[in-house]
Amino acid sequence: MQETNVQNKFVETKFITLYDERDPLVLECGKTLSPVTVAYETYGRLTNDGTNAVLICHALTANAHAAGYHAPTDKSPGWWDGFIGPRRAFDTKKYFVICPNILGSCYGTTGPSSLDPKTGEPYRLAFPPFTIRDLVAVQKKLLDALGVNRLAAVCGSSLGGMQVLEWGISYPDFCETIIPISTAARQSAWCIGLNTAARAAITNDPVWNNGCYTQQPMKGLATARMIGMLSYRSAVELKRRFGRHRQNGAADRFDGNNLFQVESYLHHQGEKLGKRFDANTYIYLSRAMDLHDVTHGRAPLPEVLGGIKARMLCIGVSSDLRYPTEEQKELVRFTPNARYAEIDSIHGHDAFLIEFDQFTAAIKNFLKKNVAEFGKIDIVE
Amino acid sequence: MQETNVQNKFVETKFITLYDERDPLVLECGKTLSPVTVAYETYGRLTNDGTNAVLICHALTANAHAAGYHAPTDKSPGWWDGFIGPRRAFDTKKYFVICPNILGSCYGTTGPSSLDPKTGEPYRLAFPPFTIRDLVAVQKKLLDALGVNRLAAVCGSSLGGMQVLEWGISYPDFCETIIPISTAARQSAWCIGLNTAARAAITNDPVWNNGCYTQQPMKGLATARMIGMLSYRSAVELKRRFGRHRQNGAADRFDGNNLFQVESYLHHQGEKLGKRFDANTYIYLSRAMDLHDVTHGRAPLPEVLGGIKARMLCIGVSSDLRYPTEEQKELVRFTPNARYAEIDSIHGHDAFLIEFDQFTAAIKNFLKKNVAEFGKIDIVE
Repeated sequence: MQETNVQNKFVETKFITLYDERDPLVLECGKTLSPVTVAYETYGRLTNDGTNAVLICHALTANAHAAGYHAPTDKSPGWWDGFIGPRRAFDTKKYFVICPNILGSCYGTTGPSSLDPKTGEPYRLAFPPFTIRDLVAVQKKLLDALGVNRLAAVCGSSLGGMQVLEWGISYPDFCETIIPISTAARQSAWCIGLNTAARAAITNDPVWNNGCYTQQPMKGLATARMIGMLSYRSAVELKRRFGRHRQNGAADRFDGNNLFQVESYLHHQGEKLGKRFDANTYIYLSRAMDLHDVTHGRAPLPEVLGGIKARMLCIGVSSDLRYPTEEQKELVRFTPNARYAEIDSIHGHDAFLIEFDQFTAAIKNFLKKNVAEFGKIDIVE
Repeated sequence: MQETNVQNKFVETKFITLYDERDPLVLECGKTLSPVTVAYETYGRLTNDGTNAVLICHALTANAHAAGYHAPTDKSPGWWDGFIGPRRAFDTKKYFVICPNILGSCYGTTGPSSLDPKTGEPYRLAFPPFTIRDLVAVQKKLLDALGVNRLAAVCGSSLGGMQVLEWGISYPDFCETIIPISTAARQSAWCIGLNTAARAAITNDPVWNNGCYTQQPMKGLATARMIGMLSYRSAVELKRRFGRHRQNGAADRFDGNNLFQVESYLHHQGEKLGKRFDANTYIYLSRAMDLHDVTHGRAPLPEVLGGIKARMLCIGVSSDLRYPTEEQKELVRFTPNARYAEIDSIHGHDAFLIEFDQFTAAIKNFLKKNVAEFGKIDIVE
């Protein structure tokens, strides 16, 4: 039995080893990997029949800590705390919510920064390439280990949304509903381009050393993050937030140290990511996104999406530059039981981290109508 | 008398020294600069009364070579050849067209890569900061030296359009018409952000050495260019041109050397700029763009634009991410004699280099209606 999650109660990240040498993870590229450790968190309690689980798929730089606090000293809760908890969009009085750190990440699940047991050194660029489908295969193995027999919902945005789509396609009988947010059936040329520039920024870093860095290539990662941020947020938002204001106000406008506020914001965001993320991991995960194409090796798009049996709520954001609403509407057009909800927001691709009320209303309403009631949970808050 | 430009005839870049120690260029920042050499090209012939001149203001990485060929071995003509020549938008049978390389650039006009006469070394980061208004002041000095008494038109896109606006505001009685393209009254937060990321890419380059590089920081400049290209072109164009195609087709999709075509395109564009441009120059010119704000030190926007006496044709491009059409419409709203033309194109901010027919039609029509006929030129092609 898993722990009950109650708002503000402490949670911990758990770890499980899922593959070993006799039963390695066989990746889509044909290479194998073992062992594979997965870091994950759970909130709420699994019913005896294992059918009330909700899988949360995180985006590029997030981790398993989606909700709650780890310790009394924590200043902020998990990255999607506003959505997970009693009476929230994913109501932990009803659902057993699972958030695994994805394969290839650097937050506990095996990835390029993990130690290769064969060498005792980090894998670095020796880590095999992987795809969104590989991420999902590992998640399925985790769910099997946890006793989950069916997913009431799979939800995620961006890279998370790509996983959601692959869940609906790869395991059509396992998912009752899927909720892809701000994502696409296949990574667009513009998004591949943005990732190309971000990877170039990383590999140009003086300390990158072809992936064998002894200290994090902070500057390169920071610049990669800046490029990302400029596509995660909208021009309208940046204008309203920062305009043309300088850090030191009306002081010398020719002083290059008197940054524009938007410059300062980007440098700050860049440094923050540089301190918490791994450069090789960024390269690998962005490549997995670029490889994302639900049609690859399958069939034309209408046929592939036509095979989704889950009821789908696809959510787009009006100002998303990276995955424009046209791409969400394309998903809805070809998926049999699909509806589209558009979030009206200036916050662009990052709206899923900001527009709690709109997202919560859309998701709650959808789940209420589309997921069977579970009568077996009896949780005291 | 200037040379006549006839299509495909050879032109040459000329050089003029405009300021000396006794009469230095006083920049907006308060610092002085001398001598200032300006590289420029002219096409067509100036009338005796000096009133048939057209000034072409170039964008970030261009130069004085706007039209014609320099030598029989040239593979391509100047960067705006399609617009300048007999019967073209700027008809050299009628107009004396001048294109100066801007102050601070690296194509012949004094800039950070020029030798500082005091040290015999390149200025590098010792070059004083400058503004769009400084660029325009130098252009005015050039026009005075050439005997130009009035501009029939001033035209330019992007950074060029910023100069056009400053011409209309700073010299209201000198310009008969102004044609700003894909520009803005003030650089937006998003554009400042894009320039911030580009500058970070440059200053991260292992050989940048705080501006004192002995070889060009090619990698950093290339990444800066990639960031630029992703805002100069539209996602729709990149999708149509490149889609998700790989360089080596269906070969191993996990081979990182089998680039996506859009990756290859961006690397190619980056390398091209790295070979032809100067890193410090990129930093200085992008900073001048970030400082662009026609209201600075003047008055609120309606009042500043209200002082423009020239008739204005402002041209926007439907898919311009960098300077969206709203920003062009804002210019038109507050300028007394202004009309707006929108180019319907998927080519984004770079459309001014591609959509010759649409731009030519708009400009020709506007000039025909708004510029007095000049009867004094008698040019034999």
